[in-house]
Amino acid sequence: MSVRGVHHLGFAVADLDEAVSTYAELFGATVEHRERVEEQGVEAASVLVGPDRIELLAPTGDDTPVGRFLANRGPGMHHVAYEVDDVRAALADLARKGVELIDHEPRHGLFGLEVAFVHPDAVHGVLTEVVCPV
Amino acid sequence: MSVRGVHHLGFAVADLDEAVSTYAELFGATVEHRERVEEQGVEAASVLVGPDRIELLAPTGDDTPVGRFLANRGPGMHHVAYEVDDVRAALADLARKGVELIDHEPRHGLFGLEVAFVHPDAVHGVLTEVVCPV
Repeated sequence: MSVRGVHHLGFAVADLDEAVSTYAELFGATVEHRERVEEQGVEAASVLVGPDRIELLAPTGDDTPVGRFLANRGPGMHHVAYEVDDVRAALADLARKGVELIDHEPRHGLFGLEVAFVHPDAVHGVLTEVVCPV
Repeated sequence: MSVRGVHHLGFAVADLDEAVSTYAELFGATVEHRERVEEQGVEAASVLVGPDRIELLAPTGDDTPVGRFLANRGPGMHHVAYEVDDVRAALADLARKGVELIDHEPRHGLFGLEVAFVHPDAVHGVLTEVVCPV
């Protein structure tokens, strides 16, 4: 597969407004998008630091993926997403290489992205996403 | 201060050769630099995924910063580094804003960079570095 580079970093935060303010004040980040997706249990802001993108992810409740992450590990770095030309082709390529996948099919992610997650055990403990803007 | 964007991501790994191979095989990463710095207790490879840079960091022993990180948290995302025009000016700006710093003066980092670390408590749990190529 062809990896274009890092699409975004995902950081888990407890309070989205505070986190957006911190990144704006300390690093000049500007908000690109913001949305609340109840079925994913997340309220998220996409912010840009220079040309680079960070997804700040706050849970909508404790019993959500980000809520459980915060309970287990506290706030911090959650995942890295690489931009690919074609998520389905990337998954096929990774599966052919024996990589453990979380998502075997592309699905709808935040901000209109097509996404799939790779298991962190396959990438030295880093939760890794492949994404394609659609 | 002026933040140009993300300079690199730092990932803690147990085995540097394996990690370099994984990133090459799965994401087409190429090695930019590699060095072992005994006094920092780290053997590191800087790899590029598209235009984006990842520092893969392996400890030279258990009683090192990366060794303790691995013992406590396992392999995974370790820090994010932002490129600034001037590390000293960035530290002064952050201090003026009341941000807790780990390094109050710039120091020599890996690969010839001038670096300083900001305390993760000041950045929602993310260990954050400001760097400037010198």
